[in-house]
Amino acid sequence: MKKIAIDAMGGENAPKAVIDAVLKVRDELPDTKFILFGDKEELRKLLPVDKINSQLEVVPTTEIIDDEDEPVRAIRSKKNSSMVVAANYVKEGKADALFSMGNTGALLACGIFIIGRIKGIKRPGLMPTLPTENNHGFNIIDVGANAKSKPEYILQWAQMASYYAEKVRGVENPKVALLNNGSESDKGDELHQEAYKMLKESNLNFIGNIEGNEIMTGKADVVASDGFSGNIALKSVEGMSSVLLHSLKDSLLNNGMMTKLGALLIKKAIGDIRTKYDTAVHGGAVLMGINAPVVKTHGRSNERPIYYTLKQIDKILDEKLIDNFREEFSK
Amino acid sequence: MKKIAIDAMGGENAPKAVIDAVLKVRDELPDTKFILFGDKEELRKLLPVDKINSQLEVVPTTEIIDDEDEPVRAIRSKKNSSMVVAANYVKEGKADALFSMGNTGALLACGIFIIGRIKGIKRPGLMPTLPTENNHGFNIIDVGANAKSKPEYILQWAQMASYYAEKVRGVENPKVALLNNGSESDKGDELHQEAYKMLKESNLNFIGNIEGNEIMTGKADVVASDGFSGNIALKSVEGMSSVLLHSLKDSLLNNGMMTKLGALLIKKAIGDIRTKYDTAVHGGAVLMGINAPVVKTHGRSNERPIYYTLKQIDKILDEKLIDNFREEFSK
Repeated sequence: MKKIAIDAMGGENAPKAVIDAVLKVRDELPDTKFILFGDKEELRKLLPVDKINSQLEVVPTTEIIDDEDEPVRAIRSKKNSSMVVAANYVKEGKADALFSMGNTGALLACGIFIIGRIKGIKRPGLMPTLPTENNHGFNIIDVGANAKSKPEYILQWAQMASYYAEKVRGVENPKVALLNNGSESDKGDELHQEAYKMLKESNLNFIGNIEGNEIMTGKADVVASDGFSGNIALKSVEGMSSVLLHSLKDSLLNNGMMTKLGALLIKKAIGDIRTKYDTAVHGGAVLMGINAPVVKTHGRSNERPIYYTLKQIDKILDEKLIDNFREEFSK
Repeated sequence: MKKIAIDAMGGENAPKAVIDAVLKVRDELPDTKFILFGDKEELRKLLPVDKINSQLEVVPTTEIIDDEDEPVRAIRSKKNSSMVVAANYVKEGKADALFSMGNTGALLACGIFIIGRIKGIKRPGLMPTLPTENNHGFNIIDVGANAKSKPEYILQWAQMASYYAEKVRGVENPKVALLNNGSESDKGDELHQEAYKMLKESNLNFIGNIEGNEIMTGKADVVASDGFSGNIALKSVEGMSSVLLHSLKDSLLNNGMMTKLGALLIKKAIGDIRTKYDTAVHGGAVLMGINAPVVKTHGRSNERPIYYTLKQIDKILDEKLIDNFREEFSK
């Protein structure tokens, strides 16, 4: 049986959203056990005895890592926090994957310092799946686990993400591109020029450089990036989309009755766009290169993204991604 | 009389859009002369004798730098191109500013190698003005003139952009932020940590780090950035907004008659958003740190953005930005 260790206390809507998602998904994943880490009383209130079955286990913990906690210090000082105890379960082989909505830095630290890197992986990278205009979606890696990157890290991230895109998202021969400040092969600083060469010489389906304005089109299935500018790209598209949709809503509500009527009539069209750019269905961001899947969803997530993320983790386990990486990168 | 050297041949809609913009703007700027550089025949066709007055001069040139030309090679080999001859006019003091819609790299090279850096400026930086949700707009510098940046460059860019925001855009005590991968002061790599310190110690109104998702909100009036990630941020927000608006249009047209009717009713609301996020009114991107204003608008620009850019250049000349920078940075 696959076992997912779940930090039930991290995130704004925890633990309720977590438990709702687990109860919703478990019948679809009969071969998976969900181990919830968190406050005994709180979890008991939300989990009456009749809802507990062999797919569900609760491990009581007494502390919580907050968003304000300094990550590395927190995982050292809050030994009995839901996140740290869950990570230790994975480390000790009592669970196969770790999920949390809590403090991102602390979760990365749990992955790197408690569960540990895969042998041969130089630096783990954080990889979300984002929606695209052509509905295919794409993976971008690294989006901020590393402030400083080297060409050989970028190559490994691209390799892992390409494998993920193929096995977990079902993309045939994923197109891999390098996030750069221009399309020509000599663009960027030394880091990006060197990364370009390494990607070109690899056996990946490398299609060259990609610029910031092209990532959302679906031109590439995998965007490899240094961790700093990957973070900037991810947040810039998030910020722009939030600002535009907010302005649209505002404008539809404050332009008189006829506009409000129009807004009612275009509800389906707006719904279509919501579906197209729905990030929830792609699951959470995976810390790639760790000895087990370590997956994060946004701290404001409700039940829905968590539900999809648990399915995503289950698929990663089914596809034995980690075993494959262990074999590939130990060469 | 102020004199603006205009490369009339660069850009998709040249020379017509350029000439239309000049003819539209000249009556509003009676103290400014527009010197057009380009093909004699083509310009003559669009400029009948009765339209020529003392505010207009045509300098015939025989070559054009294309978007495909390698920038530095092009400005050396195409000595008689509209862009290079215009740049030489500025260098020789026969004009005060340079405008072009042509090859961005070549225009940067004209600025740096022909017109030259202001003494004391380590590296020029490219600075557009972008719209924000709160309608104030913001400047971001550098967006790609430099693939590799140093903390002291970023400080100088911030200083020039802050002065621009105050004098040209009329922002009182502009709020300056550093584009970084997190909000805390110790975020980023060494480059950004060092730039943070230098900005904090400067006499700028430094409000700390800003993340990619916040730049479009108007939280900062000036976003200082290394040239690589500034380029990624700019293009990412451009790409996201283009993809979203395209999807919206698509969705409004392909959801049946009622949606189409709704689309008609919300026209004013959509118009409001267009106005809010209209980049044209802010003018072009300025290459800051050059001995004269060197300003670029998008190669696809039509008359409207050019019109606003010519007004922007006129304002830069009125405010004597370059004299001020010469004095400030020679210290």
